[in-house]
Amino acid sequence: MKFDPETLVYNDQGLIPAIAQDETGAVLMMAWMNIEAVKRTLETRRVTYWSRSRQAFWIKGETSGHIQRLIDLRVDCDADCLLMIVEQEGPACHTNRRSCFYTSVLEGDAVELMAPMA
Amino acid sequence: MKFDPETLVYNDQGLIPAIAQDETGAVLMMAWMNIEAVKRTLETRRVTYWSRSRQAFWIKGETSGHIQRLIDLRVDCDADCLLMIVEQEGPACHTNRRSCFYTSVLEGDAVELMAPMA
Repeated sequence: MKFDPETLVYNDQGLIPAIAQDETGAVLMMAWMNIEAVKRTLETRRVTYWSRSRQAFWIKGETSGHIQRLIDLRVDCDADCLLMIVEQEGPACHTNRRSCFYTSVLEGDAVELMAPMA
Repeated sequence: MKFDPETLVYNDQGLIPAIAQDETGAVLMMAWMNIEAVKRTLETRRVTYWSRSRQAFWIKGETSGHIQRLIDLRVDCDADCLLMIVEQEGPACHTNRRSCFYTSVLEGDAVELMAPMA
C-alpha cells in the first residue's frame, strides 16, 4: 500500500513527533515534523525537522555538519509518532554528545551518562 | 544533583512525551505523561502514562498484563522528552505486536515488519 504523509495524525500545530535512533539501537533525539518536513525527509533522505522555536525547517546538521541520513522511516500503530533509523554524523545533541538522552535518574539523582564528544 | 520532576518541560496540556525502549534496543512505543505519572513511574517502577483519550492514568498492562517495569529513566538535553529503558512483558502494542512501530515506509510503500505475537 502506498504511503501517504497525509494519513499521519498531526497535532493542533500540525506537528508529529519523530524519534531518531541509530543503527546500534541508541535513541539519539526526538524532535518534530510537519507534513512538508516528512515529505522532504523521505525525498532527500536527509532528516528534516520543523523547528518550533525558529518556526522554520531544520535540516539536521545543515550548519553543524552533524547530519542524519535516513535509513528507514517507521510509523506507529495509531500513526501519530514516527521512528527513524538514521546514520548519524558525529553527535546528535547540540551539547556535542552522541545522544540528547545523556541524563539518567538513578536513585533520585540526575546523573550524566556520557561526556561531550572530542 | 537531586532529580525533580517539576524541572521537566511540559506542554500546554501539562504533558511530556515518553519513549519506551527495551533492553535489546527496540523502541516499543511513545506515549504521554503528566507530572504525577512521572512521579508514580519513578516510585512504583511500573510505567504509568496519562491517557489523553481517557483523561486518566494508564498503568501500562493493568488490564492486559503487558506491564512495563522501569529499568532506567532518562531525560533529554532540554528536559522536554523522556526515554525509558523497560522490561516489557509480552507485546507493547495493543495490536499484540512487540512494538507499535511495525510499519516501515519502503520505496514509498507502507510495509508491515512484524506480525502479532502468538
